[in-house]
Amino acid sequence: MVRKYLISHRSPDTDTICSAIVYGNFLRRKFGYDVEVCRLGDLNNETKFVLERFNLEVPNLVTELEEGSEIILMDHNEAKQSINNIENYKIVQIIDHHKFNLTTKDPLFIRAEPIGSTCSIVAKMFFENGMEISKNEAGALISAIISDTLYFRSPTTTKEDIDLVKKLNEIVGIDDLERYSLELFDRKSDLGDISVEELIRMDYKEFNLNGKKIGIGVMETTNPNFALSRKDEIVSKLKEIKENDGLDLVFLSIIDILEERNITIYPDEESNRILAKAFSVDLGSNGLIDLKRIISRKKQIVPKLEETW
Amino acid sequence: MVRKYLISHRSPDTDTICSAIVYGNFLRRKFGYDVEVCRLGDLNNETKFVLERFNLEVPNLVTELEEGSEIILMDHNEAKQSINNIENYKIVQIIDHHKFNLTTKDPLFIRAEPIGSTCSIVAKMFFENGMEISKNEAGALISAIISDTLYFRSPTTTKEDIDLVKKLNEIVGIDDLERYSLELFDRKSDLGDISVEELIRMDYKEFNLNGKKIGIGVMETTNPNFALSRKDEIVSKLKEIKENDGLDLVFLSIIDILEERNITIYPDEESNRILAKAFSVDLGSNGLIDLKRIISRKKQIVPKLEETW
Repeated sequence: MVRKYLISHRSPDTDTICSAIVYGNFLRRKFGYDVEVCRLGDLNNETKFVLERFNLEVPNLVTELEEGSEIILMDHNEAKQSINNIENYKIVQIIDHHKFNLTTKDPLFIRAEPIGSTCSIVAKMFFENGMEISKNEAGALISAIISDTLYFRSPTTTKEDIDLVKKLNEIVGIDDLERYSLELFDRKSDLGDISVEELIRMDYKEFNLNGKKIGIGVMETTNPNFALSRKDEIVSKLKEIKENDGLDLVFLSIIDILEERNITIYPDEESNRILAKAFSVDLGSNGLIDLKRIISRKKQIVPKLEETW
Repeated sequence: MVRKYLISHRSPDTDTICSAIVYGNFLRRKFGYDVEVCRLGDLNNETKFVLERFNLEVPNLVTELEEGSEIILMDHNEAKQSINNIENYKIVQIIDHHKFNLTTKDPLFIRAEPIGSTCSIVAKMFFENGMEISKNEAGALISAIISDTLYFRSPTTTKEDIDLVKKLNEIVGIDDLERYSLELFDRKSDLGDISVEELIRMDYKEFNLNGKKIGIGVMETTNPNFALSRKDEIVSKLKEIKENDGLDLVFLSIIDILEERNITIYPDEESNRILAKAFSVDLGSNGLIDLKRIISRKKQIVPKLEETW
């Protein structure tokens, strides 16, 4: 049997990693598939914490596979966010909850839904198939749903996400989910001695919007000051990334999870003008612009940019 | 509630039409959605026969919808095969079994599988949800699965398609499925006083392969002589289409369903050479090239062209 590789997106987060691990188990148990879970980058502290707490193995770091390998894209579908030279591999499945920008050579299995997290879809597949979910798997799924929806604060949240967390918690038995979410956000916010570039790239995605190449970093945190206090360094690094990666626009949005606010760091005045126009807000100053309650890259930032720029 | 429009592909066939009608009923019954089924072109004789036999309404012919309308793409995902100016609408769902070439502005619901027909996927959704399928709905689904898989002769056929037809026939109760398939193929082959252009466009799809624009007509028939006897007219019309539509390659494959053979009509010597090379066959002559057992556009013709040209 040909091995199938479950691939996270770049700058992997808790949703892409946990969905890959648990969906890998689904494929093993339901179909007896030979699968291997791969990550395309370093894990953040939140994801490490979740894997440790629920006793799950850290996926292997992978940069290249044998040509022609069968891959399954988890929590992404755009080539720019996936493994290098993706055209060398055969995409056999995609499980995702983002907008699509996809070209394949062959028919494939896709399950995509406009829902709060890819782990919500994976949970649904277990329930639909009447398959048991272990306590540790359910714990990973719950953590990713809470993380991706900012404990239901994000506008991407659906009623299904909330119901799934309730149902999964019958298996996990976390006493106080609100408190657990704060624990997750603290880990998310604990960046240790991270470099400025790592900080920007930690949750970073590139997009092609109407022919423009755009890099968007997002930092979801309970402690915005950690990044804001390094604003000048971040502005310099954004300038460098913009030039080196040939981008039309790049910025880092600092999302205060608890206050549900977005302060964004931009590299130059051109970017300032584009952001102010796209989000109908006042021009920023000194590299900082207030994007107010725009807290979801997927549901708010990207669509607005696409619409107005 | 916002109305959702289920959209067939251009040159609609039995699978795109029946899947749209029956999935429309699924959405009405399961979610109470307000849906309307639309076709983008004239129905072929096989599809007309199926709708009549199972007492199903002919969908409205549609060329344009109100800007911003919510659309559901049935049995296709590529813009070139869909409604004109698709960027004016909001794609909210896709049910399909083809390769993907898709860009959306927002997250959406997608269910795609590498399976013999889109109606197989729709049938699965009814069964998964424990929903009843009426006799007429099951008849439409069975007809489309038989038609799209050439009664299991096509290499796109999976074991699931065969099992689904068996299960659906417990509802429909067709005595002799083999004989029913021949009846369908006769209708498929009954083209009446069709014009040469209609014949080419009847089951015609445009593709963008590695930057080349390719038009592929397929005529699945039990009576290849109907088209072959009009070969000279078809060659002239293909030349005209190639020029007018700015195509790099265009051809019409005549698929003898019962013999599982493909004789293809091409417009010029350049096309002859491309086809001979892509399918590793001898050069054709006088506008006819023997593509042997290459009978599936999706699984054989398109991938081979993409690989070698």
